[in-house]
Amino acid sequence: MTLDVTAFLQTLLACPSVTPVDGGALDVVSSTLERLGFVVTRLDFGPADAPTPNLFARLGDGGPHLCFAGHTDVVPPGASWRYGPFDGIVADGILYGRGAVDMKGGIAAFIAAVADVVARGGPNGTISLLITGDEEGPARHGTREVLPWMAANGHIPDFCLLGEPTNPSAMGEMIKIGRRGSLSATITVRGVQGHVAYPHRADNPNHRLIDILHDLTHHVLDEGTEAFEPSSLQITSMDVGNPTTNVIPAIARASLNIRFNDRHRGDDLVAWIERVVARHAPDAEVDARISGEAFLTAPGEAVRCLSAAVEKVTGHAPVLDTGGGTSDARFIAAYCPVAEFGLVGASMHKADEHVALADLRQLRDIYREFMEAFGL
Amino acid sequence: MTLDVTAFLQTLLACPSVTPVDGGALDVVSSTLERLGFVVTRLDFGPADAPTPNLFARLGDGGPHLCFAGHTDVVPPGASWRYGPFDGIVADGILYGRGAVDMKGGIAAFIAAVADVVARGGPNGTISLLITGDEEGPARHGTREVLPWMAANGHIPDFCLLGEPTNPSAMGEMIKIGRRGSLSATITVRGVQGHVAYPHRADNPNHRLIDILHDLTHHVLDEGTEAFEPSSLQITSMDVGNPTTNVIPAIARASLNIRFNDRHRGDDLVAWIERVVARHAPDAEVDARISGEAFLTAPGEAVRCLSAAVEKVTGHAPVLDTGGGTSDARFIAAYCPVAEFGLVGASMHKADEHVALADLRQLRDIYREFMEAFGL
Ligand SMILES: [Zn+2]
Ligand SMILES: [Zn+2]
Repeated sequence: MTLDVTAFLQTLLACPSVTPVDGGALDVVSSTLERLGFVVTRLDFGPADAPTPNLFARLGDGGPHLCFAGHTDVVPPGASWRYGPFDGIVADGILYGRGAVDMKGGIAAFIAAVADVVARGGPNGTISLLITGDEEGPARHGTREVLPWMAANGHIPDFCLLGEPTNPSAMGEMIKIGRRGSLSATITVRGVQGHVAYPHRADNPNHRLIDILHDLTHHVLDEGTEAFEPSSLQITSMDVGNPTTNVIPAIARASLNIRFNDRHRGDDLVAWIERVVARHAPDAEVDARISGEAFLTAPGEAVRCLSAAVEKVTGHAPVLDTGGGTSDARFIAAYCPVAEFGLVGASMHKADEHVALADLRQLRDIYREFMEAFGL
Repeated sequence: MTLDVTAFLQTLLACPSVTPVDGGALDVVSSTLERLGFVVTRLDFGPADAPTPNLFARLGDGGPHLCFAGHTDVVPPGASWRYGPFDGIVADGILYGRGAVDMKGGIAAFIAAVADVVARGGPNGTISLLITGDEEGPARHGTREVLPWMAANGHIPDFCLLGEPTNPSAMGEMIKIGRRGSLSATITVRGVQGHVAYPHRADNPNHRLIDILHDLTHHVLDEGTEAFEPSSLQITSMDVGNPTTNVIPAIARASLNIRFNDRHRGDDLVAWIERVVARHAPDAEVDARISGEAFLTAPGEAVRCLSAAVEKVTGHAPVLDTGGGTSDARFIAAYCPVAEFGLVGASMHKADEHVALADLRQLRDIYREFMEAFGL
C-alpha cells in the first residue's frame, strides 16, 4: 500500500480540529495507521467530560525504535482567507488550509513515508507515533501525559522526531535540536494609598515596582552558549489602572516572561526574581509558572542521519538551531533525545496557511531517507 | 447690623452647591453683602450654557485694600453621614454639613466679621470679596478668571486673605504663606509589538518606560528650602493592559505628578521630563499639564498682623507653612501677596464634615482683629 501524501493531507485538513475540538482528525490518523499494520492505542487523558484526545501507535518490535511526534489540533482560522480554511483547495501547486504546515502536513508526510517503508518490507525495528489533539492549547493532558504512559509500557524510543515546521523560508534550512525554556511571572506590589501632596504618609507601590523591574531588565542572565542565544527577559505588562492624577495607588502589578537557555533551570530563575522583588518590596507577591525547561539534544548519530537525509533530498545542509518558541519537544526531552524537522513555517498561524506540494513531497522523502539511514 | 455667624453658616450649608451646581449659595452671599453696603458684581465666566458662577464685592474706597477670597462650592457629600449633609444640624456645640469647614464656614466667619467692622463705622479703606462657585472642580473659570477682571477694573488689593481650612487639628496652629506648585504628565512610549521568543524583532516599550521612570524617580529635585519641603515626584499609574504572556506590547504609558517648591517653575520641570524621556525613547510623547506654579508670600506686615490676630484670639502663635495640596492662592499669588487662614480641616471632604461653633466664633474674631490691625 502506498499513500498519496496530498490526498491524505486534504483528508486531515477537512477535519475542523481547532483546539480543543478533535473534528475526527485522530480517527483518520488511527484508521490509516491500522491499515499499515500499526497497533493503535487511544489515550484520552484529562477531565472525563472534556478529555484531550491522544494516540500512541506502534509497528514492529525491537531496536532501533524511532518515534514520530505531532499534533492534529490547529489554531483558529481567523478571517480573510482566500479559500476555505478546511476545504483543502490546491491552486498553482499550493495546498491551502489551517494546519497545512503546522502540522497536519508533517503528519501526512511521515505516514506516507512509513507506507513506503512498509511497502518495501520494513521496518527493521520499531516505528511509533505519538499524536496529540492538544498542542496549541493548554497542552496539559497531551504529549506531557502520553510520555509517562509510554515509559510505563516500555515504549520509550531511541530517538524522537517531532514534525513541527522548522524551516524559516525554504525546505532544508533548519533542524531544531533544542528549545529555550519559558516561564511567566506576575509581580504584585502592595503599598499604602495616599494623596500625592503627602507622599510621606503613603507608600508608592509604583516606585518599588519600577526599582524591581529596572533591576530585572538590566541583569544579564547569560551571554548565550554555543548552541543557544542569550536568555531574554521581557516585561509584558504593567498595570495599575489609577485614573486619578493626585492619588498614589495601593497596588501595582507587572508581568514578565523569560525565555532561557540550558544555563538555567526555571526554579532558579523564579528564586532570582523573588530575591530581586524582596530587595525592594519584601511583602510583594510573585506568581510564577514555568511552562517548559530548556533542553538540548547533543548532536549524535540520529541527528547526523537526519541532517544527511535533509541534505540528500533538498541539497541544503541544515543549520542545527535552538531558537524560537516552545514546542512539545520540551516534554519529550526528559525521556529521550529529540529533534524537530518539518515544513516551512512562514504561513503558520496566519490566514492562507499553505504548503507547496513540492515541499510536502520533499518532506515525505526526507522522512523516508531518514528512516532508512536510521536502520529501519 | 450684626450677623449671627452660626445661623448664616446654616443658611449657606442648606444650599446644595456641589460643584458645578450653585444651589443658591452665591445669592445668599450676594444679598447679605448688599445689605452691608457692598457693591456686588456677578461674574459668570465660561461656556454660556454652563457658566461658572463667581462674584466680586467691594465696600469702600482707597487703601488699605484687603480682599477675602473663598469658594461656595463643595465636594459631593458621599454616604454614611450622621446627619443630613445639607441640614445644618447642631449637636453638642458642633455644626455638621458639607462645606462646614471647606469653606462656607470661612465665608460666614469673614462676613460676620465685616458686619462688626461696618457696625463700628468701618472700614477705613476697602474690603472686597472674591467668591467663586468652582474651586473643587476644574476651577478653570473661577478665581483664575476673576483676577484678570479685577486687574482690568482697578480692584487688585494690597493683600488677599484666602479662607481655606489651614489648621490641622486646632485653631491657631497654622497660616499658609505659600503652596507648592503641581504638574501632571502622561508619558506614552511606542515600541514594536512582537513575540517574546523573538525580542530582537520587537522593541519593548516597557523597558524604555522602566528606564525613564527609574531616572525620574531617582533624581533628587531639591533638598527643600527654609520655607518649603523638598519637591516630590510620584508615579501615579502605569498602564499597558497586555493580557497575553507571550507578546511584547506596542505601547506603554505612565502618569506622574510633581509637587514642587519655588526652586522650580513648571515649564522647567516639563523640559526636564522631556529630556529624560528623549534619552530612552526619542519618539515618546509627554503630555503635561501645569495646574499651578509654586508661590511664597514673604512674611511682611500683613502676615505679621494676621499672626498677631491669631495669637490674640487663640493663644497660639501659628506656624507659617507651605505644605499640603494646591488652592486658589496659586492664581492670586501672581497679582498680590496672599496668605491663607481658616478653620480646622480634619473633617474636610469626609463624611460628617463639621465645625465646632466655638471655632467658628474664634475665626470670626480673628478675621475682625486682623482687619483692625490691618488698618480697616
Ligand atoms: Zn505546531
Ligand atoms: Zn476649599
